Amino acid sequence: MTDWQAEAARLDAADPLAAHRSDFIIDEDLAYLDGNSLGALPSATPDRVAEVVRDEWGEGLISSWNTANWIDLPQRIGAKIAPLVGAQPHEVVVADSVSVNLFKLISAALAMQQGRKVVLSEPGNFPTDLYMIDGLEKQRLAERRLADRADIESALNDDVALLLLTHVHYKTGAMFDMARLTKAAHDAGALVLWDLSHSVGAVPVDLNGAGADFAVGCGYKYLNGGPGAPAFAWVAERHHADLQQPLSGWMGHAKPFKFADDYTPAPGVDQLLCGTPPIVSMSALEVGVDLMAGIGIEALVAKSRQLSEFTRAATAAVVPELPCISPEDPERRGSQLSFRHEHAYELCQALIARRVVGDFRAPDVLRLGFAPAYVRFADCWRAVSELRDILDSGEWRKAKYAERGQVT
Amino acid sequence: MTDWQAEAARLDAADPLAAHRSDFIIDEDLAYLDGNSLGALPSATPDRVAEVVRDEWGEGLISSWNTANWIDLPQRIGAKIAPLVGAQPHEVVVADSVSVNLFKLISAALAMQQGRKVVLSEPGNFPTDLYMIDGLEKQRLAERRLADRADIESALNDDVALLLLTHVHYKTGAMFDMARLTKAAHDAGALVLWDLSHSVGAVPVDLNGAGADFAVGCGYKYLNGGPGAPAFAWVAERHHADLQQPLSGWMGHAKPFKFADDYTPAPGVDQLLCGTPPIVSMSALEVGVDLMAGIGIEALVAKSRQLSEFTRAATAAVVPELPCISPEDPERRGSQLSFRHEHAYELCQALIARRVVGDFRAPDVLRLGFAPAYVRFADCWRAVSELRDILDSGEWRKAKYAERGQVT
Repeated sequence: MTDWQAEAARLDAADPLAAHRSDFIIDEDLAYLDGNSLGALPSATPDRVAEVVRDEWGEGLISSWNTANWIDLPQRIGAKIAPLVGAQPHEVVVADSVSVNLFKLISAALAMQQGRKVVLSEPGNFPTDLYMIDGLEKQRLAERRLADRADIESALNDDVALLLLTHVHYKTGAMFDMARLTKAAHDAGALVLWDLSHSVGAVPVDLNGAGADFAVGCGYKYLNGGPGAPAFAWVAERHHADLQQPLSGWMGHAKPFKFADDYTPAPGVDQLLCGTPPIVSMSALEVGVDLMAGIGIEALVAKSRQLSEFTRAATAAVVPELPCISPEDPERRGSQLSFRHEHAYELCQALIARRVVGDFRAPDVLRLGFAPAYVRFADCWRAVSELRDILDSGEWRKAKYAERGQVT
Repeated sequence: MTDWQAEAARLDAADPLAAHRSDFIIDEDLAYLDGNSLGALPSATPDRVAEVVRDEWGEGLISSWNTANWIDLPQRIGAKIAPLVGAQPHEVVVADSVSVNLFKLISAALAMQQGRKVVLSEPGNFPTDLYMIDGLEKQRLAERRLADRADIESALNDDVALLLLTHVHYKTGAMFDMARLTKAAHDAGALVLWDLSHSVGAVPVDLNGAGADFAVGCGYKYLNGGPGAPAFAWVAERHHADLQQPLSGWMGHAKPFKFADDYTPAPGVDQLLCGTPPIVSMSALEVGVDLMAGIGIEALVAKSRQLSEFTRAATAAVVPELPCISPEDPERRGSQLSFRHEHAYELCQALIARRVVGDFRAPDVLRLGFAPAYVRFADCWRAVSELRDILDSGEWRKAKYAERGQVT
């Protein structure tokens, strides 16, 4: 019988990223397995944010748009995200939220696809992806169509304008074959928009290699940009000349400070800028992105797979009554594992009480996420062993664990 | 002949808000007359931001959505902004940028006005307001029509769905009569959307008193929320039941954590929430709003008028060759004065070199803004006397003042 605790210790000792835990401020005794929801705080962020607030805003005031280069932040951070997702630096820009960027890029795709208005996605996709299609449907510009994962390729009819998929599923962790689905969409005359929210910084993504068209991604999960950090958007270079989207704000104008009455889009992805960006939150994002870019995506991916493989094997052996609904093949899943249990909510709360933080997704899923830069194998083992103990002791049945909060 | 310096000293000594200068971190020797572009840093902001970053994010991590009430921030700050604009607390919500909120509310108005699609505004309105109409026009949902300020009432034909105006003009400081224009629009069957970006926190605004329909406003000018602070949106209660807008993100869903496939809007202005809000920037905004709400809008308005009246009179007397293009009647202008000069850009740069910060708006306008919470009458006098000196000395002709930066 495997000694999982010893195995975890062995893996931690051999982990080339082990020293990076100190790049984050996390309590030593905390097993934080929820970086797929909100990434941890980089150690350098408090000082950087204080500098932006006190020196750049307080001291530099309005001049900091130039002297502190606030004006270039969206492109500068975008260029740093690019190598994490197989993009060219000038194809990525940071702006707004994932939701707002989805609206821009779904609209851009529809504008390129005269005569087609179906946006195809899957039921159970992250809600905001589906809701943004709903928004365009209400405007009568899109028609939403959902097909189960297994039926997507056959649903790519000649009325499909855009295939919109989340690369790694938020609930199950299942990962699409980006190259294959992209090709299938293109063969049907459709464009593809990938939501990389649960991918970027933890799994291999090669947007240009796959020949994809559009992508969006989240700044506050594996990029460690802080709560509600701005999101990013990617557009393949070949579409830059035809890019047109309706959220035509002044920051996306070719010459914003001409204050012209008519909108002339800035070239390329710069037109995806809309209003004035939240500089303090965006500066915090830059620290997180710098950290991930510094470690490099290959090392992050390798560790992510080791973490989830270790946890999957240990759970299967030690808590066999907890079915894992994430794909068994690590190449087909993201940096998370999801387990189904009738009382997943209560199990999650009992884990949190023991300083093991995962999360719950309605109605019956317990998620454990593996942010490769700071999660230790010992954390994973603690999750497994505490789950065993909580189930054995029946502790999760305590009333206090059954009170459902607003956000979990 | 008036001794303007002595008059400024007298006004400062009698200023009931004088002590509030210390609520901000601003160099003693700095005359900051650009709070209408970017408000100054409240003294309490650095500590509050550090607390949000270190304690709420770093320590509380994902649980802070509940324990630190991040989830309620948009409504909580909205309710605090409400009394500054004559709104009810539940009619205001903080979200996204002014640009994105314009898109939501122009769309909402168009959805309520079946058969009409003209959005009427004025040429020279703040660009993003016009560009967001352009965006909807590109989607073929709106038709943009511009009428000069004097012709707006006669341009309110029966095809006008919405009148979109900026209450205080960013360049000239001219202020619309909100009640009158609102009534004129309603008489023509149009709705009204007011952009309060250059109004909120400095001039009297009574949205419900005027019977207005929609409003948006900026968090980083007189509300002192920091660079790119999130914006706010207001919808009159009578429209809450019919509100419908296309940026239907998950945070605006009636039950976001049900993760349902179909969008059901949250009641009232909560549906204007779209993606996950930038918590760090939003928390900084709350400090600025608290400060303004604490001083109270009546005191802010009174001081604002005194400041601009003093400056107008002093400039007219001391720098008579600099024509003021802002309305003479303080009841018809915002908290700023704008002066026209062929070399306004160079004058502005020469002022900045003397630690008097105003700004330039193309092609020939020098703006001086009066943020009533921290601007001193002595600052205003310095602006006037330095302008006199710069013009007399010809210092503005120096080459270094002619290099035009990106943001001014």
